[in-house]
Amino acid sequence: MAQQKIRMGMVGGGKNAFIGAVHRIAANIDGQIEFCCGALSSNPETAKTSGESLFLPEARSYGSYKEMFEAESALPDDVRMHFVSIVTPNFAHFEPAMMALDHGFHVLIDKPMTLTLEEAKKLEAKVQETGLILCLTHTYSGYPMVKQARQMVKEGKFGKIRKVCVEYPQGWLSLPSEKDGNQQAAWRTDPAKSGISGCMGDIGTHAAQLAEYISGLKITKLCADLNIVVDGRALDDDGNVLLKFDNGANGILMASQIAAGEENALTIKVYGEKGGLEWHQEEPNTLRVKWLDAPMQVYRTGHDYLSSFAKHNTRTPSGHPEGYLEAFANIYRNFASTLAAGLNGTTPTPEMLDFPNATDGVRGMAFIENVVASGKSTEKWYDFKL
Amino acid sequence: MAQQKIRMGMVGGGKNAFIGAVHRIAANIDGQIEFCCGALSSNPETAKTSGESLFLPEARSYGSYKEMFEAESALPDDVRMHFVSIVTPNFAHFEPAMMALDHGFHVLIDKPMTLTLEEAKKLEAKVQETGLILCLTHTYSGYPMVKQARQMVKEGKFGKIRKVCVEYPQGWLSLPSEKDGNQQAAWRTDPAKSGISGCMGDIGTHAAQLAEYISGLKITKLCADLNIVVDGRALDDDGNVLLKFDNGANGILMASQIAAGEENALTIKVYGEKGGLEWHQEEPNTLRVKWLDAPMQVYRTGHDYLSSFAKHNTRTPSGHPEGYLEAFANIYRNFASTLAAGLNGTTPTPEMLDFPNATDGVRGMAFIENVVASGKSTEKWYDFKL
Amino acid sequence: MAQQKIRMGMVGGGKNAFIGAVHRIAANIDGQIEFCCGALSSNPETAKTSGESLFLPEARSYGSYKEMFEAESALPDDVRMHFVSIVTPNFAHFEPAMMALDHGFHVLIDKPMTLTLEEAKKLEAKVQETGLILCLTHTYSGYPMVKQARQMVKEGKFGKIRKVCVEYPQGWLSLPSEKDGNQQAAWRTDPAKSGISGCMGDIGTHAAQLAEYISGLKITKLCADLNIVVDGRALDDDGNVLLKFDNGANGILMASQIAAGEENALTIKVYGEKGGLEWHQEEPNTLRVKWLDAPMQVYRTGHDYLSSFAKHNTRTPSGHPEGYLEAFANIYRNFASTLAAGLNGTTPTPEMLDFPNATDGVRGMAFIENVVASGKSTEKWYDFKL
Amino acid sequence: MAQQKIRMGMVGGGKNAFIGAVHRIAANIDGQIEFCCGALSSNPETAKTSGESLFLPEARSYGSYKEMFEAESALPDDVRMHFVSIVTPNFAHFEPAMMALDHGFHVLIDKPMTLTLEEAKKLEAKVQETGLILCLTHTYSGYPMVKQARQMVKEGKFGKIRKVCVEYPQGWLSLPSEKDGNQQAAWRTDPAKSGISGCMGDIGTHAAQLAEYISGLKITKLCADLNIVVDGRALDDDGNVLLKFDNGANGILMASQIAAGEENALTIKVYGEKGGLEWHQEEPNTLRVKWLDAPMQVYRTGHDYLSSFAKHNTRTPSGHPEGYLEAFANIYRNFASTLAAGLNGTTPTPEMLDFPNATDGVRGMAFIENVVASGKSTEKWYDFKL
Repeated sequence: MAQQKIRMGMVGGGKNAFIGAVHRIAANIDGQIEFCCGALSSNPETAKTSGESLFLPEARSYGSYKEMFEAESALPDDVRMHFVSIVTPNFAHFEPAMMALDHGFHVLIDKPMTLTLEEAKKLEAKVQETGLILCLTHTYSGYPMVKQARQMVKEGKFGKIRKVCVEYPQGWLSLPSEKDGNQQAAWRTDPAKSGISGCMGDIGTHAAQLAEYISGLKITKLCADLNIVVDGRALDDDGNVLLKFDNGANGILMASQIAAGEENALTIKVYGEKGGLEWHQEEPNTLRVKWLDAPMQVYRTGHDYLSSFAKHNTRTPSGHPEGYLEAFANIYRNFASTLAAGLNGTTPTPEMLDFPNATDGVRGMAFIENVVASGKSTEKWYDFKL
Repeated sequence: MAQQKIRMGMVGGGKNAFIGAVHRIAANIDGQIEFCCGALSSNPETAKTSGESLFLPEARSYGSYKEMFEAESALPDDVRMHFVSIVTPNFAHFEPAMMALDHGFHVLIDKPMTLTLEEAKKLEAKVQETGLILCLTHTYSGYPMVKQARQMVKEGKFGKIRKVCVEYPQGWLSLPSEKDGNQQAAWRTDPAKSGISGCMGDIGTHAAQLAEYISGLKITKLCADLNIVVDGRALDDDGNVLLKFDNGANGILMASQIAAGEENALTIKVYGEKGGLEWHQEEPNTLRVKWLDAPMQVYRTGHDYLSSFAKHNTRTPSGHPEGYLEAFANIYRNFASTLAAGLNGTTPTPEMLDFPNATDGVRGMAFIENVVASGKSTEKWYDFKL
Repeated sequence: MAQQKIRMGMVGGGKNAFIGAVHRIAANIDGQIEFCCGALSSNPETAKTSGESLFLPEARSYGSYKEMFEAESALPDDVRMHFVSIVTPNFAHFEPAMMALDHGFHVLIDKPMTLTLEEAKKLEAKVQETGLILCLTHTYSGYPMVKQARQMVKEGKFGKIRKVCVEYPQGWLSLPSEKDGNQQAAWRTDPAKSGISGCMGDIGTHAAQLAEYISGLKITKLCADLNIVVDGRALDDDGNVLLKFDNGANGILMASQIAAGEENALTIKVYGEKGGLEWHQEEPNTLRVKWLDAPMQVYRTGHDYLSSFAKHNTRTPSGHPEGYLEAFANIYRNFASTLAAGLNGTTPTPEMLDFPNATDGVRGMAFIENVVASGKSTEKWYDFKL
Repeated sequence: MAQQKIRMGMVGGGKNAFIGAVHRIAANIDGQIEFCCGALSSNPETAKTSGESLFLPEARSYGSYKEMFEAESALPDDVRMHFVSIVTPNFAHFEPAMMALDHGFHVLIDKPMTLTLEEAKKLEAKVQETGLILCLTHTYSGYPMVKQARQMVKEGKFGKIRKVCVEYPQGWLSLPSEKDGNQQAAWRTDPAKSGISGCMGDIGTHAAQLAEYISGLKITKLCADLNIVVDGRALDDDGNVLLKFDNGANGILMASQIAAGEENALTIKVYGEKGGLEWHQEEPNTLRVKWLDAPMQVYRTGHDYLSSFAKHNTRTPSGHPEGYLEAFANIYRNFASTLAAGLNGTTPTPEMLDFPNATDGVRGMAFIENVVASGKSTEKWYDFKL
């Protein structure tokens, strides 16, 4: 029998949604996933129109996710969607995710996983209970050179890691654009939709995940200075955090959305006993590898000398730059390959299984709660609690 | 009635083909094109297997392009493919393209358009005769910052253009890898499959097209030094060319596949009376704009200050790097949008129509014939003949 | 009467001293200063030999600084040195500086100014009492693009400053090289010679001075995490510090000498309401200027569009890179020009007067004492005390 | 007996002269050379005033170089200048140089060595005849990373060299500024002062020297396209040249002074069988070293892993950028060390002897004559004649 594509439904992502479009591109790129149904908006009319413009069959462009899960559950095995992609704002992650799992659908969800740590733990428990798979799109861990960095640290190339510096400056919230009709700004600065943190929840979580992913270490203490720089905001739009890791290494995490003139300048530097590495998201195919007594090396995507993890997540030869959408697509592809292996009764490779999951989602929510608590504390060090 | 996706068939691009996979990704990304059928290999068995692994319906995975054109012609309007994508080596472009046009299918074709200038002219005539559309994938003109560069020159920001320097060094043919089973190397160094030029046909044409596309000028004279650097080759693997343009500007074009250690380092610098610009394919979202009496400006993809052409060819906000595959996809998307406009009876915008066509294909083949002729001449300047 | 060169004596800087050689080059470059005498080592024999190899007249190559100050005082006006340059390790700054002032000599001194804050205050008081001039070589504020940055902030180009991030990673103390005969490492890791801090005293002070110099702000609170990373050291070799400034801006200061693979990567980013700037010491002739809604601009040394302060501190046209030694020389030149103005009875320009002085030296020592105190505190924020 | 400084006289370089000031800085930096006398202008009054402002003793600030050579010849051995530095425009090199040699003085001279090839040959003959030393300031060969590049090629790290691409774009002559009182522009565009070539003589010679110096190869054929881009000029202000080298390698040399927006962007790329290198004058402490099958390495000034030639020409540790003035000073220092060795009866090391000499000067003048001849020829290839 012919292989089947993996079939995806989508919750959210209708007209004017930024991240929904990104998810669809990521799902499309490799031709392995079929976007077969959706509940694209909480407004049923918008949902329908969006479905049409996205070529969804009319019958499978649903008015609500509840309707979608029920209707899809009733479809035959070879038609029914395999997983749902949830691309709504943070406050609308938990309920559809739980319901999807209850209906037997795998789940892919944008970060942060939920609105609260409590929700995240419930979701993780549900995932374990059902045996279904949850994938979290921490995009930046999908880049091949990030995977190369992680592997080199893991193999001990740099000796013991001593210091991790991650910074994520953006400038797009430098003005109070949430008051000028910018929808992306509006929900991200609204506690009801974003949760207890603005900047740290939106991008600080990415920075923390990247730091732990590459270094293989866990944050154990933090000392946070969270700031509301633009007057009138309810949530932090900027923050600086000192870190301690479980092997004794120290670190800094900076995240800001008022760094005027910056685009999306996520950068990480990791230093070990024997050398260090440096990676810039805006120049993602380059990994600078520094040594104590030898010239810096510039590792580049697409070369034979890279690890299997880097190679597995690359589509083109060196010098043909892949970017953000391909990094995103790597997460989709690995997730879908893992699902396909499940369907085919084969064992997914370690490279396929390398995508963020529910446990990472819990850790991300814990980061948010800890960093906010530390920000309020007058004590220097705050113990990271899960 | 619901909008339809544009349906694509493919000739070539089966197992182990590099550029076929790139074409499919480019077609997939935006979810606007359906890959519905193919004749994926000249070997019918490989064609079938490839079709299966790419999720083609068995009935539409054809054993030959002739079979495909005939069978698809017989299908109903709302099922039949709209266009064929031809991704075979150069020698196998002309015949399927002509046949596709004769059967009423639009054509997308990899560059260089044909094996000879004569074929190119016949193909252009056939396009004009049929009124169908032919799109040529000069990938690099699909980058948003290349389009920005072209617009800025067009608007006269730099005054009269005085000098154009384009270089395209690659290192992947530094060793005689065509003798070691490298299939990509094998056909590109074989005159029967590539035509009268190796390096200049493969990448020199890209460089020449980019120079003319950005500057808005036409090459009128050239002085070529074509070299066979690796012993035993039949075709040039390196070359340096002096240029004159139709407004009196001078230029240099360098293309090499023996530039050891280089990846795909296509770079262009254009100088006018008032300033200049610089673009590097390996850092594609950055356009350096230089002025006589003011600081250099760094234009970046995704900003509001860019031209409509740059914006139209971008999917993500600034700082979320798009790359080679998106540039490729821009050509597919513009072509498909133009076809969709035709189907819907609307007029395509100038931004949609901005993709290379049959006339560009003829010019590319003329470049190859002229540069080879100049390379053999002992005269300094050779007039560019169409 | 012919103009005279400004005459310099030197304390320290004999054989094998790194920074002494740098000071001499800085004094030599512009041909305005004559190196006329010295007490080049605390070892009289080494002092003599060093003097000889540096072309000092035998009679003015002294065995001790006490001897030098006394002998020089007795020389005629047109022969006697004008100022003394003190280039010994930190612990040996205070005494010769006080003695020089007491003998009527101006003083130039390497940073940090003294061993303790108390000494620094005494020295500042003596400077005020004598009316003589003390210059402190915070090298990095001598770079033309640092001066340009300061002027742009001062002119309000970026609006109110919101955030200042400065980092100064070096890797040269990654190994315990003080145990392997590295003299530079030996004194810098020795509290008796360096004072209460290692890394923060040696390079953290540079970073703090740069942050305040460019932003025009003053640090008011800090939260320090100082680390001894290499086992067996008595002083910090690494640290991360959160900052608050007097206008409410926040900041981060990182300094490390165990950042394996780094050279001397002092970097600063400043963000205001309307834009920001970025400067890297290792690429010193470039100043990146970022805007909310316009392309980044790259300001470069040597251009007409720069401020008078940047131009005054540059010797060559744009594109002829000046570096660390010229930045150092700018401090010498401005100091010497100020002295020359004094001798000639003219008024020094603001550009000449732009060099670090005793008050900056006190502030640097206060930074060291505050950052060490904060590092020991369990409170998050520590008030900066002078 | 105490060591003496090497004593320098100067011809030209009075008020408003650009390159004279550079030469004096280069001579001053290392404190090894004493600027003791000069004939600083052809106008005796300007000569006197300039001498005064540069602290020359009144008696040794001469009204003409003839006067200087005669007067200095009459001074005692331990006072008389050792060498003369000639920093006048091209047309005024030959006569003072010959006269200096005839009076027994060593000569340092700015490039190009003379106005014509014929003069250059006479000067070379005179150097050989007198046994004196002539040093030519091809500045760019004084950079440590250029020396590193040369050594790596020499040691065969890249195998046989196949291709050399050198470009030298400047923008400062984009406008006809010679008509607006720009003195630098005025003499460089005047055949009577510059010779038969403008751009190629001024900067093309640097590019050619750099290409031969690093590659160790000699140009054997060239094909030149020389252009007068700005209307009304008598000499080339732009040019593109194809090259052949004596081992069969090919190359390109581009030099332009109408590349609007460029500063002094001399860049070279060399490709061999096993890898290649890339160096940019505006980022001089970085040497990119590329390999067929391994990550690019970034060699940086100041490291232990460098060759003795690179180390010998560096004053500071890695990360403390040295620049144009230090490269210039390296030539002075090596020349002066060679002279000092002569005075002391010791043998100069190969590192000291590594500065351009009269033979290089003849080759540079031959380059100018050949490139101009080729530019006028309708034949493609022109044999390089000495």
